[in-house]
Amino acid sequence: MKELKKRLQDISHLSSVLALLCWDQEVYMPKKGADRRAASIAELNGIIHNKFLAIDSDGLLTKLKKELDENKLKGKDVVIVTEVWRNFEREKKLPEEFVREIAETVSRAQGVWAEARNKNDFKLFLPWLTKIVKLKRKEAEYIGYEKSPYDALLDACEPGMDSEQALQILNDLKDFLMPFLKEIKDSQKNIKPKILEGKFPLDRQAVFNEMVVSKMGFDMEAGRIDKTTHPFADGLHPNDVRITTRYRLNDALYSLGSVIHEAGHGIYEQGLPVEDFGTPLSESVSLGIHESQSRMWENIIGKSKPFWKYFYPKLQKEFPEPFKKVALDDFLKVINKVAPSLIRTEADEVTYNLHIILRFEIEKEMIEGSIDLKDLPKIWKSKMKEYLGVDVPSDALGVLQDVHWSIGLIGYFPTYAFGNLYSAQFFSKMKKDIPDTDKKMVKGDFVEIKKWLNKKIHAHGKTYKAGELVKKVTGEDLNSRYFIEYLKEKYKKAR
Amino acid sequence: MKELKKRLQDISHLSSVLALLCWDQEVYMPKKGADRRAASIAELNGIIHNKFLAIDSDGLLTKLKKELDENKLKGKDVVIVTEVWRNFEREKKLPEEFVREIAETVSRAQGVWAEARNKNDFKLFLPWLTKIVKLKRKEAEYIGYEKSPYDALLDACEPGMDSEQALQILNDLKDFLMPFLKEIKDSQKNIKPKILEGKFPLDRQAVFNEMVVSKMGFDMEAGRIDKTTHPFADGLHPNDVRITTRYRLNDALYSLGSVIHEAGHGIYEQGLPVEDFGTPLSESVSLGIHESQSRMWENIIGKSKPFWKYFYPKLQKEFPEPFKKVALDDFLKVINKVAPSLIRTEADEVTYNLHIILRFEIEKEMIEGSIDLKDLPKIWKSKMKEYLGVDVPSDALGVLQDVHWSIGLIGYFPTYAFGNLYSAQFFSKMKKDIPDTDKKMVKGDFVEIKKWLNKKIHAHGKTYKAGELVKKVTGEDLNSRYFIEYLKEKYKKAR
Repeated sequence: MKELKKRLQDISHLSSVLALLCWDQEVYMPKKGADRRAASIAELNGIIHNKFLAIDSDGLLTKLKKELDENKLKGKDVVIVTEVWRNFEREKKLPEEFVREIAETVSRAQGVWAEARNKNDFKLFLPWLTKIVKLKRKEAEYIGYEKSPYDALLDACEPGMDSEQALQILNDLKDFLMPFLKEIKDSQKNIKPKILEGKFPLDRQAVFNEMVVSKMGFDMEAGRIDKTTHPFADGLHPNDVRITTRYRLNDALYSLGSVIHEAGHGIYEQGLPVEDFGTPLSESVSLGIHESQSRMWENIIGKSKPFWKYFYPKLQKEFPEPFKKVALDDFLKVINKVAPSLIRTEADEVTYNLHIILRFEIEKEMIEGSIDLKDLPKIWKSKMKEYLGVDVPSDALGVLQDVHWSIGLIGYFPTYAFGNLYSAQFFSKMKKDIPDTDKKMVKGDFVEIKKWLNKKIHAHGKTYKAGELVKKVTGEDLNSRYFIEYLKEKYKKAR
Repeated sequence: MKELKKRLQDISHLSSVLALLCWDQEVYMPKKGADRRAASIAELNGIIHNKFLAIDSDGLLTKLKKELDENKLKGKDVVIVTEVWRNFEREKKLPEEFVREIAETVSRAQGVWAEARNKNDFKLFLPWLTKIVKLKRKEAEYIGYEKSPYDALLDACEPGMDSEQALQILNDLKDFLMPFLKEIKDSQKNIKPKILEGKFPLDRQAVFNEMVVSKMGFDMEAGRIDKTTHPFADGLHPNDVRITTRYRLNDALYSLGSVIHEAGHGIYEQGLPVEDFGTPLSESVSLGIHESQSRMWENIIGKSKPFWKYFYPKLQKEFPEPFKKVALDDFLKVINKVAPSLIRTEADEVTYNLHIILRFEIEKEMIEGSIDLKDLPKIWKSKMKEYLGVDVPSDALGVLQDVHWSIGLIGYFPTYAFGNLYSAQFFSKMKKDIPDTDKKMVKGDFVEIKKWLNKKIHAHGKTYKAGELVKKVTGEDLNSRYFIEYLKEKYKKAR
């Protein structure tokens, strides 16, 4: 075990480097550095891949797997060997040639997708999407599955989840959301986001953002915030976690919202046990659990009244124009406004999940081969109309809006919705565990919230699968009930 | 040859990564990331080292070396095999255990040095310096030398140079500088640097800096400027070259001077032939030649009247206070003021080289074993008095001021002086080759200067040794005459 841990740790030093390369590429790399950066990333990826497979070159991993199967391992060692073996099996199943083919395809497809979106020309992207879907189906075959090939892809993003379970959870959610949206939609029309517009110098926005995330418990000595086109969080390791944001001069909440979201991811990464870094004990559980951390801070906490009771006076002091003349309740109405729209990333808490359900239904059928890819724009438009009541004027604002499929991410979308459900389920339990959560927030005391998340979720790394973790923490399987209750409560006056 | 180039290129992708790790460490890495960064750098260093030695694992390099010796290689291939073999031999000569010992020693010694400087306690550092000198002497033995062990160390920094030649060149320079300094010193006393002080917001300084280096020809699409404690230039590869600076609110020239210096290094790095990157054809010649590029831009060009005839009105416009009321000639007097002082890095063009000569004389004797290390503070003080007329009040401001020895850099200092000499020798030739150099500068046209440097120096990579290059470009061996003429001309009114 000691030798296995050493080998994993050596690899982890290189994985940290890879994370830095990707961060720098988005944040500070000069334009002309792109080609050679791609080559550096490919070279390092190759080295990491080979080093990972070399773990078993002398049979070390096979030997430990045997001990595991014979119940000779104990405690944390069980987790480490189980998870490393799972990864190892998965990597071995995909032939090197296939991995290269898929990498080359998506690297070229991404450019075609960007062009197709610019030109609003789905036909341009169609041959590439066809190729990607074919490859992802092949990947599912290599990996193996019981019922649907989609299960194999979903399992890579949300280990332990299958499409049957996903379908049931998301259908429950859909059954609630569609009538609920109709019910509250009209009440939202008089809420005017314009009242929050102003002129907010970017450097002062940045200082305010930093103050907020520090209060949340994001450690600025073990992380940083920079500016990029698309916000993201990138953990090199628990002591170096970098988040990014973008700004609008006239909208202070645009940047702050994304910073709170990414800091949620960041607090998770910082909360992984650094002493086990390199092993599965210090890896996040799943994309869905990761997203639960960001969405909890961004929405459940970061759009709540107690949170803003503390921060709103500070925001008013920093930017008296326009906030001095906007009452807290009006402010909260605006930041929680529900309005069906075309673009997923700009959607509110109610409609966001309908965007996800739409994609989930489509990509499941794509992989199972039950729809013709050339019909995608038509299907997209009809579902948007049905679920959100929105007319899609162009494919650029429709089926071409997201980068995911072009980079081979199929099975990823549902984890965004799971994140929302997990977050509500966790938060409900947390409020039972921490007395006076709301009062603490009003006082700007987020310490116990962060500690609860650290202890209940972050500290375990990959010790539990997502499904096990949610059961262990909340006593129930993942379900949509808590999220539905949360929305009902939040919008009770709107009904 | 094709295979050799491929192997070198694969390594170069990782060297670029290493350069990024070091850059990030100084510029943006959060404080708590330090330990794991050191581990990542060590891991990657090990991989690069092994990959480099593996070049010959199947005898490829040995085979090519044989072809080289039999005169079967032509043109650029000769350079590549010669230089790669030279490096390979050098790396093979140092036992792995020795390399590790020296790395560990200097990594710990650096902290001790910093503490010793803080506490002004040379005795604290003495045992570590003793250990380092011993190890560097051992390194010289491993590498081999003809006359002095110092030659082996000097050759690593300035290939082709030996201590006899260095001694002669630097003695010539000293013979001129010491009386020259006495001659002009008094004329400098009435020059008041205070007249250039003001209040210069850092972001506006940064914009001005960027304008200046862009005019010089530093390509901001293939590079960037950031803020660090100590300025440096770091070339990941010719298309991604990063320079750094530091600021003083009351002194706009403090940052600008260092930016011009680092941009000189940066223009060299950007000028290396990118198509050959990874091979010696795209490596800089030597530390001395590198320094010639930075010092030429910083001093010979960047403190000249033609340069400032163009930029001074812009500086006056950007910062009317105080520059509007300072005439150009008075401005030039201040930025060229000669004043003996304690600290090398803050020295003017005349006294700087005396600082270097002092260190050169001391470190040569250190390695040759002809002085007792515990006498260093005494020797330092007496030489400072003799060469610069300066009384050294403390070791912190004396023998402990530079980091170099603590990190094992012995044989490095003289290259700073060589840089000054090369720069004057190159510049003299350039002015003959480019008609109306001064008039072009006055118009803000630096294109031909940059092109001349690209063509005569940068484009060759390591094709020529420093000594060969200076002879090829200027028709003469390196000597102090041009630098001496340059100083005489600059300070002719002061005598």
